[in-house]
Amino acid sequence: MKVAVIQLNSKQDKQKNLLKIEQFIREAASFGAELVALPENCNFLGNGNTFQAEEIPSGETTTLLSKLAKELKIFIHAGSITESFTKDKSYNTSFVIAPTGEIISIYRKIHLFDIEISGVSSYKESDAIEPGSKSEMVELPFGQAGMSICYDLRFPELYRKYALAGAKILFVPAAFTRYTGMLHWEPLLRARAIENQCYVIAAGQHGNYLPGKDCYGNSMIIDPWGTVVARASEGEGIAIAELKEDLVASARQSIPCLQHRREDLY
Amino acid sequence: MKVAVIQLNSKQDKQKNLLKIEQFIREAASFGAELVALPENCNFLGNGNTFQAEEIPSGETTTLLSKLAKELKIFIHAGSITESFTKDKSYNTSFVIAPTGEIISIYRKIHLFDIEISGVSSYKESDAIEPGSKSEMVELPFGQAGMSICYDLRFPELYRKYALAGAKILFVPAAFTRYTGMLHWEPLLRARAIENQCYVIAAGQHGNYLPGKDCYGNSMIIDPWGTVVARASEGEGIAIAELKEDLVASARQSIPCLQHRREDLY
Repeated sequence: MKVAVIQLNSKQDKQKNLLKIEQFIREAASFGAELVALPENCNFLGNGNTFQAEEIPSGETTTLLSKLAKELKIFIHAGSITESFTKDKSYNTSFVIAPTGEIISIYRKIHLFDIEISGVSSYKESDAIEPGSKSEMVELPFGQAGMSICYDLRFPELYRKYALAGAKILFVPAAFTRYTGMLHWEPLLRARAIENQCYVIAAGQHGNYLPGKDCYGNSMIIDPWGTVVARASEGEGIAIAELKEDLVASARQSIPCLQHRREDLY
Repeated sequence: MKVAVIQLNSKQDKQKNLLKIEQFIREAASFGAELVALPENCNFLGNGNTFQAEEIPSGETTTLLSKLAKELKIFIHAGSITESFTKDKSYNTSFVIAPTGEIISIYRKIHLFDIEISGVSSYKESDAIEPGSKSEMVELPFGQAGMSICYDLRFPELYRKYALAGAKILFVPAAFTRYTGMLHWEPLLRARAIENQCYVIAAGQHGNYLPGKDCYGNSMIIDPWGTVVARASEGEGIAIAELKEDLVASARQSIPCLQHRREDLY
């Protein structure tokens, strides 16, 4: 299965973001991608997400992506968009569209990014976002995939749950800050791949989107041995890799750590 | 608290290994180390570990290390040695000695290294080693520390348990194979530090010890932000770093992920 991760620098002009998304998805499909993965907040990155919230599946982003999936006969993993919930709160929601155009999986971010790094950055995602209330897996032709978004990456429990439930792929769309990305993004992604012997598909936002707000980029696809097999460069762009069933099998047969767990001792 | 990790290339001559251990511990203490950490199988690395098994605390390795800890007024984390159990089986056992010379913590490896990477390497640790039956923490002047050995590193559950129980330090002595070390050692160590916001102290074996058997080395100390603050070079040697209480506090205050866990959803 050929997979493309799209690295974006989404900003506050939603129509412009959607136009770029369409262009990149068409380009990735022309390269033979059967699954295209977008970053977190793909259709809008900036202040006031809540005013950009859409219904799923009737909103304009879902409608566009469904049309593209159907036309291009590909799976689209829609990083995340802000989904309507109440007047004051939205969800940070990821979803997967099948080549039929149907949404086959919806995941609402369960761990919210409430951090304050003195002198560096401060976010309180929970001010505007309601946390999701369940984990979520999706069945793809390659096998099952576990859904997550950005800050979820810091919680190994979630990915372990997916691996034990049969996942071969872990999705981690993100808008990682440049500072925490530099320190944490790659080792955490590689660890999730290694300890769970899964492919990790991590499309990220890159670059500046508001004064003082930068994303780390380094969108990547990591194999079940922990090797980064595709990585986006600086700026917007596409990275592509072929997922290989035999690498999942070889990792799990060679180092059967998923069978060596001492559930009795944790 | 100043910590030294000793990187060794232990082989099958136990007396030679013990002599080197003594020299390195004295050298580390002369640099001001208050805690010296040794790698897995520090006193013997080769075939027939079982014949080298010792009683703890009466064996010669324990006796030597107790004497050194007391004389030098330091803590010694004794990587691991093979501990007597039955005629056919031993434990792979790590322990910590206080500056009084007393053993204050004993941990027996709970996940055993039974792997077979086709054409690369094959180990069946469980043939000769009995797995331990509990996790173990030790109280140090800097705070609590969680014990583990080598292959345990692949199990995030163990380290999470330690962090939730109050650990600020995670010990990972190892004899990681060169091949798996190249692929997995550093990202897994850094992930354990980052996700648990702990110092990771990882003393490893380095180099060839039997025909075709090589260890990866790269002994390191990692801070709670995931930065490698000390790393041993090729060959045997010492790497030293000062553990800073304020880095544990700043990591945990800045990114309170240990409080953001969704225990209800895993």
